[in-house]
Amino acid sequence: MKTTRTPGLFAVMLVAALTLTTAVARPADPLPSWNEGPAKKSIVAFVTKVTTKGSLDFVSPAERIATFDNDGTLWAEQPMYFQLFFALDRVKAVAPQHPEWKDQEPFASLLRGDLQALLAGGEKAILEIVMATHAGMTTQEFEEIVRDWIATARHPITKRPYTEMVYQPMLELLAYLRANGFKTFIVSGGGIEFMRPWAEKVYGIPPEQVVGSSIRTKFELRDGQPVLLRLPEITFIDDGPGKPVGINQHIGRRPLAAFGNSDGDLQMLQWTAAGAGPRLCLYVHHTDNEREWAYDRVSHIGKLDKGLDEAMRQGWTVVDMKKDWKIVFAR
Amino acid sequence: MKTTRTPGLFAVMLVAALTLTTAVARPADPLPSWNEGPAKKSIVAFVTKVTTKGSLDFVSPAERIATFDNDGTLWAEQPMYFQLFFALDRVKAVAPQHPEWKDQEPFASLLRGDLQALLAGGEKAILEIVMATHAGMTTQEFEEIVRDWIATARHPITKRPYTEMVYQPMLELLAYLRANGFKTFIVSGGGIEFMRPWAEKVYGIPPEQVVGSSIRTKFELRDGQPVLLRLPEITFIDDGPGKPVGINQHIGRRPLAAFGNSDGDLQMLQWTAAGAGPRLCLYVHHTDNEREWAYDRVSHIGKLDKGLDEAMRQGWTVVDMKKDWKIVFAR
Repeated sequence: MKTTRTPGLFAVMLVAALTLTTAVARPADPLPSWNEGPAKKSIVAFVTKVTTKGSLDFVSPAERIATFDNDGTLWAEQPMYFQLFFALDRVKAVAPQHPEWKDQEPFASLLRGDLQALLAGGEKAILEIVMATHAGMTTQEFEEIVRDWIATARHPITKRPYTEMVYQPMLELLAYLRANGFKTFIVSGGGIEFMRPWAEKVYGIPPEQVVGSSIRTKFELRDGQPVLLRLPEITFIDDGPGKPVGINQHIGRRPLAAFGNSDGDLQMLQWTAAGAGPRLCLYVHHTDNEREWAYDRVSHIGKLDKGLDEAMRQGWTVVDMKKDWKIVFAR
Repeated sequence: MKTTRTPGLFAVMLVAALTLTTAVARPADPLPSWNEGPAKKSIVAFVTKVTTKGSLDFVSPAERIATFDNDGTLWAEQPMYFQLFFALDRVKAVAPQHPEWKDQEPFASLLRGDLQALLAGGEKAILEIVMATHAGMTTQEFEEIVRDWIATARHPITKRPYTEMVYQPMLELLAYLRANGFKTFIVSGGGIEFMRPWAEKVYGIPPEQVVGSSIRTKFELRDGQPVLLRLPEITFIDDGPGKPVGINQHIGRRPLAAFGNSDGDLQMLQWTAAGAGPRLCLYVHHTDNEREWAYDRVSHIGKLDKGLDEAMRQGWTVVDMKKDWKIVFAR
């Protein structure tokens, strides 16, 4: 035994020494799912610049605010926003308690499985379905409903849990920014209370760093127990020109870096770019029809038209998902 | 020189050794401005309990949310809210640009120095003055106005800068909680944009951890430059039952500890107390008419009546400013 042991130990030590050398010579890539290219280069150059002490572009950690759109930027959004799938699933789940829905639009169409008829009802129909499924319960009850759904529901096309349809390169980007002293926020048109129950586990973003659309809540004592009741009234739409408003209201600082994928993010990127000193504005461009969905200027969901023009004009970073990402989904 | 050097060095080492011994034997008191008594004891016992690993009451750092009222809890609020002094000062400052105010109430009374007549106009008069001074400019312009005012204005009675009328024991409490992994938030009926420009410097609370009342803002491009314009429309009153609503909207977690001084904080404390496991609910009771102002059940500003009863019933911590605080103001 002893004769075989020495070379074995030697081999282990040699490997360890080599590994150590490699580690020193080439530090681990913080963005391994990103191909080398202009997008990755611009991200790393920006982060290096604002975090290098003594650099003219150095930014104190307190000012390192990064805001991320969610739908289409951190997770997929096709063939429609995942929160709408949640709403449709909820209508079906609670239909037994609403026998009147059988004869009442837009619920009747939905329960018959006639999505065409449902969508023909336009925004009004969607809003009715969202309100029927997002209001009328306490905040705690709604949180549990979302938790249950996100843990069990599956995407109709990929058949995967929705939380597996988050973009691996963006998870790495979030972690990379946080490792460099950035505070990462979600700033999404989606419902703030729909995202919070899972954003911390999935993205590492705590509830107090989630900004989104919201409905009215009301404080009440129920048998002496305080509750917050969710009411069917929209108080804020965190989209388009609403995003800088939401950022100002919630964060109170201008972002140093902002990340989006659609025209709904344009004003957030403009607001970010208008700050003094270096800023990073980045669009994720959905170019990969094989691993995901390719869409931009004429899409109903996640339309990127004016934003793309502005990005070209201003020299913002545009990620070509097909070229820039080695992996798309996290698993 | 050499002969005197050795005893000198020895003396230094002796002092160092003694200091070290003292430090080990008795750690520095994190709340030196608090007298030993039930209030201080309950604070320290609570913090120790929720931060002791392995304790049944241990709470993870992410859940250690502490919310503080501002007026009357972190700084003084007599003879009226400091933000109202700001509004009155602003009316005088911009009056030259508003010649019509000379004949227009409530401005005319104020400019004549007739506060009685002004207050006779009730809430409506106050609201008009607040809107005239808080809206009609960009968020950036308003921030600069507040910064200038807070740097130069003086309290009409104490003649001190307002930022010197913050409570030293509460500054120590904020620091003590943060040193124990708590995230500290302001949750105030005051204007969110009125507090943010100075809260970080004065309290160590960054803009994104300030929750307050707000008016509508609107995104606009002015000559291609994005601005947020402040409009004369209140969108949220962060007071009374509004405080749990604001906490839920902004923080998205129930506080582990909450601190107030008036009935306007009662629902925040109830919301906090209703969480599972140990919670700290604390009222600052204004009992010191010599170093500050004594007021509670019948005061117009900072009325503490129902809250005091509830604190007695629930066994919440009530700070007796006169007995519990060695020092009141920070300087």
